[in-house]
Amino acid sequence: MKGKHIPNLFTLGNLLLGVFALVLALNEEYGRGAIMILLAGVMDYLDGKVARKLQVSSDFGKELDSLADLVSFGVAPAILAYALKLSDWGYLGLAIALGFVMCGALRLARFNATTFSGNFMGVPITAAGGIVAIVIIYLGNIPDLVLPMIMMLLSWLMISKIKVPKF
Amino acid sequence: MKGKHIPNLFTLGNLLLGVFALVLALNEEYGRGAIMILLAGVMDYLDGKVARKLQVSSDFGKELDSLADLVSFGVAPAILAYALKLSDWGYLGLAIALGFVMCGALRLARFNATTFSGNFMGVPITAAGGIVAIVIIYLGNIPDLVLPMIMMLLSWLMISKIKVPKF
Repeated sequence: MKGKHIPNLFTLGNLLLGVFALVLALNEEYGRGAIMILLAGVMDYLDGKVARKLQVSSDFGKELDSLADLVSFGVAPAILAYALKLSDWGYLGLAIALGFVMCGALRLARFNATTFSGNFMGVPITAAGGIVAIVIIYLGNIPDLVLPMIMMLLSWLMISKIKVPKF
Repeated sequence: MKGKHIPNLFTLGNLLLGVFALVLALNEEYGRGAIMILLAGVMDYLDGKVARKLQVSSDFGKELDSLADLVSFGVAPAILAYALKLSDWGYLGLAIALGFVMCGALRLARFNATTFSGNFMGVPITAAGGIVAIVIIYLGNIPDLVLPMIMMLLSWLMISKIKVPKF
């Protein structure tokens, strides 16, 4: 195992947790599913951190990172939210879930196809998916409508040209 | 709308069908979910065909295509297969589903990070996901064990260096 592949192990961990969140959605374990999304976020943070520390970065790693991010922070939050609550609103709820994934994919494809430095353009999918996961965890204590409203807002913010500082 | 974005509409259709297959998995409609995967395959074929016909091709389009492919031909078949049958085998079934998605992601990341012409290296995820969808559709008529066996074989074939002619 060469050092350059170590960050990719965290990325695979990210993807694995995202798919596991979907398995938990099938089992109607929405809170635990949302926690998997947050843990996937930790993995995503670590992969970037480790890559910078080891000064290894590759096209392969970047591709893998985007693929994992779409599953863990786009598909998994959308499916958990749909199964938990959005399905109550029929086609509108379905459209909100599908729209969230579409916007996340457009954000990732745009990010990878442009070279820039400084600020992010549009809210990163990791942040959007993490926020949806947190709303899912606290949904018993807040009005149900918060979930679709925040998902529509985040969908728009992902594809908007709003500037978000890197952290 | 510029012509160069037309192939991307097919790619978004591919992604949309993949997410819809996951929604059908939640509803225990596995056969219909598998049909969505096959329809996503038609969209994936058309996006490449249209891009070549219009002679438009972009980094953005390629990124979006990979993202859609992982969801429709990696995550959706794995989750449908898990919900339908693999879950009967506990952690082994879970590992087979997770392994299929991991290998699909590795195949896509390797494909995007290398430039080449002629043959594909490793079985494309579109083919692997399509085969799993067909097995899901016919699972009533074939032994249950075919599903995990073929998924393990396809997982390996995706990351192998086997040469597959382009078609």
